[in-house]
Amino acid sequence: MTNTVRLNPVGSMSQLSQLEMNLLEQSTTDDMYQIFRNCCLAVLNSGVEQDDAEALFETYKNFNVKLARKERGVKIELINPPQNAFVDGKLIAGVHEHLFAVLRDMLYMSSKHNAQFDSAKHRIRTPTPANIATHVVFDMLRHSDALGSTEPANMIVCWGGHSIPVEEYKYTKAVGYQIGLRGMNICTGCGPGAMKGPMKGAAIGHAKQRVKTGRYLGITEPSIIAAEPPNAIVNELIIMPDIEKRLEAFVRISHGIVVFPGGVGTAEELLYLLGLLLDEKNKDQKIPLILTGPASRKDYFEAIDDFVGATLGKEAQSMYQIITGDASKVGSALNIAQEEVLEYRRKVGDSYSFNWTLHIPEDFQQTFIPTHESMKALDLSLEQPISSLAANLRKCFSGIVAGNVKAEGIEEIKRHGPFELHGDASLMRKMDVLLASFVKQGRMKLNGAPYEPCYVINVPDAES
Amino acid sequence: MTNTVRLNPVGSMSQLSQLEMNLLEQSTTDDMYQIFRNCCLAVLNSGVEQDDAEALFETYKNFNVKLARKERGVKIELINPPQNAFVDGKLIAGVHEHLFAVLRDMLYMSSKHNAQFDSAKHRIRTPTPANIATHVVFDMLRHSDALGSTEPANMIVCWGGHSIPVEEYKYTKAVGYQIGLRGMNICTGCGPGAMKGPMKGAAIGHAKQRVKTGRYLGITEPSIIAAEPPNAIVNELIIMPDIEKRLEAFVRISHGIVVFPGGVGTAEELLYLLGLLLDEKNKDQKIPLILTGPASRKDYFEAIDDFVGATLGKEAQSMYQIITGDASKVGSALNIAQEEVLEYRRKVGDSYSFNWTLHIPEDFQQTFIPTHESMKALDLSLEQPISSLAANLRKCFSGIVAGNVKAEGIEEIKRHGPFELHGDASLMRKMDVLLASFVKQGRMKLNGAPYEPCYVINVPDAES
Amino acid sequence: MTNTVRLNPVGSMSQLSQLEMNLLEQSTTDDMYQIFRNCCLAVLNSGVEQDDAEALFETYKNFNVKLARKERGVKIELINPPQNAFVDGKLIAGVHEHLFAVLRDMLYMSSKHNAQFDSAKHRIRTPTPANIATHVVFDMLRHSDALGSTEPANMIVCWGGHSIPVEEYKYTKAVGYQIGLRGMNICTGCGPGAMKGPMKGAAIGHAKQRVKTGRYLGITEPSIIAAEPPNAIVNELIIMPDIEKRLEAFVRISHGIVVFPGGVGTAEELLYLLGLLLDEKNKDQKIPLILTGPASRKDYFEAIDDFVGATLGKEAQSMYQIITGDASKVGSALNIAQEEVLEYRRKVGDSYSFNWTLHIPEDFQQTFIPTHESMKALDLSLEQPISSLAANLRKCFSGIVAGNVKAEGIEEIKRHGPFELHGDASLMRKMDVLLASFVKQGRMKLNGAPYEPCYVINVPDAES
Amino acid sequence: MTNTVRLNPVGSMSQLSQLEMNLLEQSTTDDMYQIFRNCCLAVLNSGVEQDDAEALFETYKNFNVKLARKERGVKIELINPPQNAFVDGKLIAGVHEHLFAVLRDMLYMSSKHNAQFDSAKHRIRTPTPANIATHVVFDMLRHSDALGSTEPANMIVCWGGHSIPVEEYKYTKAVGYQIGLRGMNICTGCGPGAMKGPMKGAAIGHAKQRVKTGRYLGITEPSIIAAEPPNAIVNELIIMPDIEKRLEAFVRISHGIVVFPGGVGTAEELLYLLGLLLDEKNKDQKIPLILTGPASRKDYFEAIDDFVGATLGKEAQSMYQIITGDASKVGSALNIAQEEVLEYRRKVGDSYSFNWTLHIPEDFQQTFIPTHESMKALDLSLEQPISSLAANLRKCFSGIVAGNVKAEGIEEIKRHGPFELHGDASLMRKMDVLLASFVKQGRMKLNGAPYEPCYVINVPDAES
Repeated sequence: MTNTVRLNPVGSMSQLSQLEMNLLEQSTTDDMYQIFRNCCLAVLNSGVEQDDAEALFETYKNFNVKLARKERGVKIELINPPQNAFVDGKLIAGVHEHLFAVLRDMLYMSSKHNAQFDSAKHRIRTPTPANIATHVVFDMLRHSDALGSTEPANMIVCWGGHSIPVEEYKYTKAVGYQIGLRGMNICTGCGPGAMKGPMKGAAIGHAKQRVKTGRYLGITEPSIIAAEPPNAIVNELIIMPDIEKRLEAFVRISHGIVVFPGGVGTAEELLYLLGLLLDEKNKDQKIPLILTGPASRKDYFEAIDDFVGATLGKEAQSMYQIITGDASKVGSALNIAQEEVLEYRRKVGDSYSFNWTLHIPEDFQQTFIPTHESMKALDLSLEQPISSLAANLRKCFSGIVAGNVKAEGIEEIKRHGPFELHGDASLMRKMDVLLASFVKQGRMKLNGAPYEPCYVINVPDAES
Repeated sequence: MTNTVRLNPVGSMSQLSQLEMNLLEQSTTDDMYQIFRNCCLAVLNSGVEQDDAEALFETYKNFNVKLARKERGVKIELINPPQNAFVDGKLIAGVHEHLFAVLRDMLYMSSKHNAQFDSAKHRIRTPTPANIATHVVFDMLRHSDALGSTEPANMIVCWGGHSIPVEEYKYTKAVGYQIGLRGMNICTGCGPGAMKGPMKGAAIGHAKQRVKTGRYLGITEPSIIAAEPPNAIVNELIIMPDIEKRLEAFVRISHGIVVFPGGVGTAEELLYLLGLLLDEKNKDQKIPLILTGPASRKDYFEAIDDFVGATLGKEAQSMYQIITGDASKVGSALNIAQEEVLEYRRKVGDSYSFNWTLHIPEDFQQTFIPTHESMKALDLSLEQPISSLAANLRKCFSGIVAGNVKAEGIEEIKRHGPFELHGDASLMRKMDVLLASFVKQGRMKLNGAPYEPCYVINVPDAES
Repeated sequence: MTNTVRLNPVGSMSQLSQLEMNLLEQSTTDDMYQIFRNCCLAVLNSGVEQDDAEALFETYKNFNVKLARKERGVKIELINPPQNAFVDGKLIAGVHEHLFAVLRDMLYMSSKHNAQFDSAKHRIRTPTPANIATHVVFDMLRHSDALGSTEPANMIVCWGGHSIPVEEYKYTKAVGYQIGLRGMNICTGCGPGAMKGPMKGAAIGHAKQRVKTGRYLGITEPSIIAAEPPNAIVNELIIMPDIEKRLEAFVRISHGIVVFPGGVGTAEELLYLLGLLLDEKNKDQKIPLILTGPASRKDYFEAIDDFVGATLGKEAQSMYQIITGDASKVGSALNIAQEEVLEYRRKVGDSYSFNWTLHIPEDFQQTFIPTHESMKALDLSLEQPISSLAANLRKCFSGIVAGNVKAEGIEEIKRHGPFELHGDASLMRKMDVLLASFVKQGRMKLNGAPYEPCYVINVPDAES
Repeated sequence: MTNTVRLNPVGSMSQLSQLEMNLLEQSTTDDMYQIFRNCCLAVLNSGVEQDDAEALFETYKNFNVKLARKERGVKIELINPPQNAFVDGKLIAGVHEHLFAVLRDMLYMSSKHNAQFDSAKHRIRTPTPANIATHVVFDMLRHSDALGSTEPANMIVCWGGHSIPVEEYKYTKAVGYQIGLRGMNICTGCGPGAMKGPMKGAAIGHAKQRVKTGRYLGITEPSIIAAEPPNAIVNELIIMPDIEKRLEAFVRISHGIVVFPGGVGTAEELLYLLGLLLDEKNKDQKIPLILTGPASRKDYFEAIDDFVGATLGKEAQSMYQIITGDASKVGSALNIAQEEVLEYRRKVGDSYSFNWTLHIPEDFQQTFIPTHESMKALDLSLEQPISSLAANLRKCFSGIVAGNVKAEGIEEIKRHGPFELHGDASLMRKMDVLLASFVKQGRMKLNGAPYEPCYVINVPDAES
């Protein structure tokens, strides 16, 4: 029996033109429609702790989505939707909004920024030229009303694992609570774990402070959304075209960044940011960066710190502060830093809501598509400029994330076996140690089954 | 001495990207910048009763406008602005908003719809292809948030002269008051006279009814804005690319139309609408249309009615109701009609806020550029389908408006003398009578000086 | 046939207890109910230009009002209401609110401040003890939420005639417009004429400045409301127990006062204020006071100025500024004065929204009930302290207002003939001249019929 | 060193008259001031898990509070406040609001309802006459704006222990979450434990449903507030004069009641409600009543159910539903019941926001002051009407609560030893069993020390 749910329009794209309707006309062969449908499915999967996109798509093969123009605007019709996001038969309002956010961003990518979709690979076919990447990031954020206010948003970006133990999860809530108590907002990659905890905590902090305009901003991308479906607390959901623009959105919209324990995705994010901050042109930037976790996770951060020290050097290590077991101290440190962040923006005449003056080298902006070739070709030697090494390490971790949880990557690995990584022996060993620790701590995947690595690390013979 | 005023950003385009800033960089040679500057100047001229664009531009030759990105968003800097819109040295908030509306719409035309500007002619260089005209109209309205609400807007479009005697002006206020008392909103071409009175009246009606969300929507175009600067009550200002899209916006957004006495512009609007309604595909459309004025203007409407009867026939006459000297009856009639308008939208599943099902033939959508050739070439014979005649009469009046008040048209006339109009003798005579009556009643121009026609009507010899 | 209209509750008193319902139970013998009913009738008479309370009550003898408790709160049921305030059969929202304001204030007077009503005289039976008068005024204003904001209200009190010629009325609109353009609010006695014009003008000014929170505060009293029914623009209506508390409310809530041409009521208000300002304890007070009218009313203000000079002296004359024919100058002067008003409040730690530090001598606070005795007993000699003279003149004019338009006063005059006034010959002559000019200019009554004075002025023989 | 914090006014009582300021003038001898000060101290103790009022007062002996009138309204000055409620030196906004709620309610009790305070006993000296009790309850709720909306509030009252184990606390959060997900609101006695958990859960549920107007209503009384300080999520705090009016407020404002495991206070609440529902006049009332706890608490509810059955009988048992271990089922049951609650209110024409038609017998309204005499005198025999037995049992439990946590009660017990309870042997034994189980489960007091009963149960000899 077919179960159909009709949703009233919400948000700025509640009215669509015929041209736009045509773009998303249900059609099993059309790439854009397929990705739109899958993103909707992912959003509806809110609250389910599962990071296997393929399994999700398999389970809901008979799910479908249609648009219908009505007197009050366009309606989204869901056919055979998953039931998790329904309460007494009614879709949770937050999830309802997320569906219209998917619609909004997919249409805008396509009609304003000419994105072409590749549904087989669940991504955009045509990479954005680097020279307009920042404009696209900005325009997507503005169009989704994420830059609207003229007041400083005090947006704290929280990075960390989607698959984390209860103790760490509680700690992310505690930190979020302290951030919320100080009137600051939260932005994450919008999945479970460290991407959900801080928002939950901040919601309570905001309630106590009577902050009714608290922002829980989730920034995702079509290729990851199914693995990390946005939780319903996210009250602003934005779908960026690819991981590079997602990372750029994180750093340009932030007024402070917190890194919780996580796996390769978190490592990718940290290396991306450190790579930028090491750039000479960014030496005056003010971006408070705190690595934090429960008191018991001291070792974890020492391992990360060692890896950074051994690869990017002391300067990189000086760019963050490690705090363990003290959520209130994290909140205070971020709060105090806000003044100098805003002072800097004022001084250089930069926007409070979008950090234009942060320089992002092309190497960090260009779309990296992880394939067996591109992964193999990565230069992972220590004999290169530090910024370049950071960029390559970032890409390397990005590829592993894809191999772990992105539909496209999983497919590739299934077909051709694990990615091969090449590089200096000493660097390769360090990576091996770091990645092995992530595996051991269960940070790679959610399901709890033994993890099968999607990569092999080749330590050069010469050094063996 | 230079007088510089810096304006804080308001509205959805308060943040701009570098690419966008570059588009509007001050440059005396750039077409887009020139038109932007002129539109700003026109907006600042709010409240001045003057419809001579050239005189305005001449007076404020040393006026300039710049953009500057600051921490709270982009600022508009006005250099040597006219002082009319300032109160105790502070710009009126409504005018302030209008400047940002100009910025928003000019950028959007350019960056989303690829408009290229021709500053010498004060218009867009590249006409929109007819097949996407409706999409552009819709997208411009949506982008300016004019379609946002899912509630029926009950938007009453008021047409009428910009140059009208006090008695008529008071009557437009009275009708606006009755419309506002019934909770309906007002949309006009946003200049003085019949475009301002209904808004002023409605503002009082809304105040009495505690309607805080009253809408006073002004739809203009770059080539007319200087002659008919938006009054500050307009709380939504939209600049459409050209008159054809402006007319389309009026009719698609309306839930009822009132025509007050006016000159050729008003005649153009009326003929445009009658042309559409006569189309077979629109026979089920519900668009209440009321021609109204003070009791003393009975003759005026009889003349109009005669002209319509003689040219478009009885069917056309049956599409409107003429009410004189009874503002309250106008309000009631519109109010009562709302139910069937909404009923129709529900029945056909059309949007409450944009009349998609209204068919607009290509002939009405295509940009008509009035030149001596195009005006001369107009087929003004009675031997053609009525819809086609309506389209041509519309263009003819449109050309006369241009010759009267648009910078481009005035320039053409100055250079090459009046437009020549050709057609059937009987039709030409009727036009002559109608136009002569407009001249006599002072409806052509504001300044009060004797009117010098920008046209000559050639009555064919055969019939002389 | 009975026509019954049921009104949904609005405002803070939308829920009533059984005890409160009982207080207002329909009962032809109960004083409070009678006054409540009459005030409702007066409010429903909004927009009618008539100041004869008796005629109004006579016309709507079969009007009745009932309360009914329903699931969404208490409903007011109107039986056979006047139709002026209905639009297409629906009560104007502003008038709807006013009815609930009447309910709120009548109940609060009674239940919190123990007011007992005397319906025969259409006033409160038990005068408030002077020592708590200020508390009552304050508490009534706070309860009606007129003091809510912590921001300065920039409340401009406008006094002036209810019966004025068109030219003066237009001028009051122009001044209101200039006040509204500067973001200031309007408070009046809430009837027609100079009490309505400034609000109408300010509503347009506020619309242009996008002020959505514009306040149009009307302060009335049970005994005058029928003669001066609140216009529907009034968005905060407050019913004070008596004229003395109404005057106190005006001056304590104001941040500036404008006096337009008017009759005896206006003279009463001006003398009240001058009497206060002449008090030694108020010498540091900042209350900008402007007497203004069209350019053609220069003579009028000269006459007033002369009378003030001759009675209260030069010091009193120095307390106001006379501006004629320049609405914009009035707006500017008030705007500029705001800074020092607020500076004074800050300095003495007084509330922005209620002028506690203004000293009001008991003589000005005590309820004065005009009867033939009390009027005759007034000491109108120049041989008394100026403050005392001001108080007595205030009472004298107050009595004449009652005799002109208050139900109770009209009744008294009908029964016992005009009030006799006694005093110094020179003062009596000046009064005679002033009052005669009011009569001649038609400022006493609205109806246009020849005015029959409700007073006789006795000039002592000795001086004849 | 003195630490002084000045708080800006918030809420409806941000402006005070001089008379009101005088009432609360700092004065160590004045009863009202003392209670005001203590309530402020209690509110500032938000978040501290401590239910010993005396200990609190002892710790903060040098705490003081003053009022100061400033230009923006009255400021509250705190001298040496506890630091728990401050974040980075700034008072939590929720607590800030609570202080002004205390001010508002204390003043209103005193000035409107003539309450006289007895600071030695930390309560009101003069009990309200029963005939106006409901009016007072209503008026206090309305004045604090708790009845404002005309929409059904769907207010779910949650009762349960302030001292509960973690497992139960988590369950209260889960139930609150399910209630919030369904858009319903929460009202509790506003302390820790089962009074805080449901609000926290609902806050997350509301966030997911984009409910920005979620209500977390806390109703307390001067004599309990110190033992059960309101948590900062409470966004509407109301201080009722005594426990009887607090109970009446709970039941009249509710649209459904949830009882979590608790101690004697919870038992008091349950018996109060059952007593009312057993009254013949309330037989048509619709008040969904659910007893719920974690799956592991089945025994607890069986014990309660037995006690109710043995004392009040089967009919009483039929008035509630027991659900264990299924928060979602609790949410659904309440949600479904709302329709019939509202239907009933509509049918009888009762307010959605205050259940006027619920009959509360005088015996339940009259203030019961627990003393050694009054407790001893309680008729706890089974030989009396059930409603009367319920009333007496309610009083009995109320006395034990006082002896446990209210300042006054603790003092009495300290001076005169435990309260003696007399009654039928079988009833006494049942009470003994029930109370002993509360003691054993640690539900009497928070501190964890062995509980010393404030009562002795006398089982009659005859039956021994």
